[in-house]
Amino acid sequence: MTVPARDPVPADALLTDLYQLSMMQAYWEHGLTETATFDLICRRLPPNRNLLIACGLEAALEYLEGVAVTAADLEYLASLNRFSMDFLNRLEWLRFQGEVRAVPEGTPVFGNEPILEVTASLPEAQIVETYLLSTIHHQTMAASAAYRLAAAAEGIPVVDFGTRHAQGAAAGVDTARAAYVAGVAGTSNVAAGRRFGVPVSGTMAHSYIQAHERESDALASFAATHHGTTLLVDTYDIRRGVGLVIDLAERQGDEFDVAAIRIDSGDLGANARMAREMLDMSGLTAVRIIVSGDLDAERIAALAESGAPIDGYGVGTALAVSTDAPYLDTAYKLAAYAGQGRMKLAASKRTWPGRKQVFRQIDAGAAVRDVLGTVDEAMDGRPLLETVMSNGRRVEETGRPLEAIRRHAADSLAELPQFVRGLDPAEPPYPVIVSDKLERAARELASRLRAEA
Amino acid sequence: MTVPARDPVPADALLTDLYQLSMMQAYWEHGLTETATFDLICRRLPPNRNLLIACGLEAALEYLEGVAVTAADLEYLASLNRFSMDFLNRLEWLRFQGEVRAVPEGTPVFGNEPILEVTASLPEAQIVETYLLSTIHHQTMAASAAYRLAAAAEGIPVVDFGTRHAQGAAAGVDTARAAYVAGVAGTSNVAAGRRFGVPVSGTMAHSYIQAHERESDALASFAATHHGTTLLVDTYDIRRGVGLVIDLAERQGDEFDVAAIRIDSGDLGANARMAREMLDMSGLTAVRIIVSGDLDAERIAALAESGAPIDGYGVGTALAVSTDAPYLDTAYKLAAYAGQGRMKLAASKRTWPGRKQVFRQIDAGAAVRDVLGTVDEAMDGRPLLETVMSNGRRVEETGRPLEAIRRHAADSLAELPQFVRGLDPAEPPYPVIVSDKLERAARELASRLRAEA
Repeated sequence: MTVPARDPVPADALLTDLYQLSMMQAYWEHGLTETATFDLICRRLPPNRNLLIACGLEAALEYLEGVAVTAADLEYLASLNRFSMDFLNRLEWLRFQGEVRAVPEGTPVFGNEPILEVTASLPEAQIVETYLLSTIHHQTMAASAAYRLAAAAEGIPVVDFGTRHAQGAAAGVDTARAAYVAGVAGTSNVAAGRRFGVPVSGTMAHSYIQAHERESDALASFAATHHGTTLLVDTYDIRRGVGLVIDLAERQGDEFDVAAIRIDSGDLGANARMAREMLDMSGLTAVRIIVSGDLDAERIAALAESGAPIDGYGVGTALAVSTDAPYLDTAYKLAAYAGQGRMKLAASKRTWPGRKQVFRQIDAGAAVRDVLGTVDEAMDGRPLLETVMSNGRRVEETGRPLEAIRRHAADSLAELPQFVRGLDPAEPPYPVIVSDKLERAARELASRLRAEA
Repeated sequence: MTVPARDPVPADALLTDLYQLSMMQAYWEHGLTETATFDLICRRLPPNRNLLIACGLEAALEYLEGVAVTAADLEYLASLNRFSMDFLNRLEWLRFQGEVRAVPEGTPVFGNEPILEVTASLPEAQIVETYLLSTIHHQTMAASAAYRLAAAAEGIPVVDFGTRHAQGAAAGVDTARAAYVAGVAGTSNVAAGRRFGVPVSGTMAHSYIQAHERESDALASFAATHHGTTLLVDTYDIRRGVGLVIDLAERQGDEFDVAAIRIDSGDLGANARMAREMLDMSGLTAVRIIVSGDLDAERIAALAESGAPIDGYGVGTALAVSTDAPYLDTAYKLAAYAGQGRMKLAASKRTWPGRKQVFRQIDAGAAVRDVLGTVDEAMDGRPLLETVMSNGRRVEETGRPLEAIRRHAADSLAELPQFVRGLDPAEPPYPVIVSDKLERAARELASRLRAEA
């Protein structure tokens, strides 16, 4: 079951940058209310990413359906002495009534590919920029980091323990969902389970052991309360901790019901081997070994490669802040206004004009390249961008089930060539080419803009 | 004015790790309900930090005062088939009734110093760990990054433009508040203004320019709507953009009312010099120059040192994700239970037992060292930890005003030696020593714990 109760209403129109409101007022005053199209893209992938996993669409659409100001918001804005009464009166009626196309959550995407496209009256499309960017950036970053962690573990489950390093525990809920989409097995964040149905799991902390006079009592009492649980063995000394679990098994005989031990410090590979040997010698071959503590994709890959007897990884910070790529080069760029393509000319920030489509071209079941083309182009390949919102309402009334999103991610990843899915830098990267038609449109627009200069 | 309306109620008891609930049930079942003390510390400062600015206390206390489960929460927990009915029945009545001591928000702190100390019945003190860690970690990290940015700018205002790279726009609100506490001048996040009274500011985006057929029309229309505004000059070509502002001034004469221009690309120092020269040549000496675009503390310091004519910095990602130190080594450690000190022995994770106090020793108006001592110790120096919550209620009924917190940060920073306040690594670092009494208590406890092993 999932229970949406008590999670914040994500539709606060003031969760935006001030300049969006300033621009809105100017747009309205000067009649710039025609239809605009904005692309939300990641310009360049960070060095440690061969691909991104698009995520955050569900939250973005929920926001777009609900975005509105309250009387208190208007009162606050009036107090700034920056905005006209006309503007505030009009803002009161703000609703997002536009169209959104997006790649489905869980889809692998690459540089310069629109993850989401907003087409709406210019002021409406403008004010939602900040919220859309922060939502899609955060969840796409988290899903992409999670994918790498899961890939490194080569099928051994990875669990998200990262909430304590999230930007507040509520941000940890979204990270947990994104991580699950990308192949992480579950989360310790209980609210993520309640809200989204992400499987929750957890063990015990050192404080539980420390609160007891004797470590053996702590392990026995926890096992008595929680059948099939995981016991933490490294509070004082790992060999001793594992020994106490073995003692407990000997004392309890058939009653013994401990599923796993957790090791949270030291050389995790060596400690896992030692623990495995001790457990096996005592006939506890069914007791699994979970490791945690400063794990990232590289350390997990090294442990997996070493053949260390590890049955699960708990990952915190590397997932919570995406330590190896702590931000993405995302942007929300005007692509068209009043039926005309728009673009920036600056070499480093060049964008592609007009409404577009991404075509993933498949050969013998494997993706071979993406083509960035115009929206109306006839082109081989599977189009990635789908219409998900029309007149401000979601096309699918109920969101896609999380399990379906996760399966879509796994299936779409399986389709990519191995060199892109792996942890090593893909050299050359997965090819994203621009169609002749789009290339021509961009060239013509650029020369017109330069001529006007 | 500030308006708290619509911000999420931060008191959701399920914003926690599952193991906190598992431990609670075991604590209750086995009668481990005596008083526990936990320290929230940053063990070691990251390489790019000489100090941290403690932040997040207000949000933490708000949470502690309100934390509770709902009927829906209990229903969800029951559905997991992990918890006893006894436990769920008891959880229904959960309220935090403990005591909290903390350093005031805005106080500079160092490694191993308690930022916050919770003393409560063990189960109550345990369940709040995750929320407290994520809140204090996030806001302390943000304030510490912000301090460095503000220090680099040497008195020139720095404004937070980072919400689009926050972990959701709501996390950006907390970052904006933390940044303001630490000396950043304001934020673009409007909800942070409404909620906390952080000064809001902002300019215009490239999309505004691009939506117009002609850049000159865009600049003129924006200036017509917003008096005393900032115009963005680098959408197509900076020299041309500045030229258009000068043209506008010539056309408008006395009507001209543009406070600043913003440059968002290229070599910001060189571009600022060129723009300054062009503006000055045209008599527009009062028009200020704001720069933005991939700024971090090092780049700001280099610009400040070069003497580039810059009147303001807009900083995004470096603040939103604290790029040069994207996480802190924070932990919430059991320090005492049932009147007895507790500690971990692992060399890398060693903690100090018992209730403690931090004494900041001042000589001739300057802080010379901190001493970590026991709570009841008579020691020279200003004690940093204050009682802020008693029996689960805040000692000060209304929170401290944000301006007072910001002033406290500035005053406390001014007291630190220059080598600690600067951007270069402090070698040796600011001294934090342990009192003889605490050292002795730790030694005795360690040998007792080892003897039991």
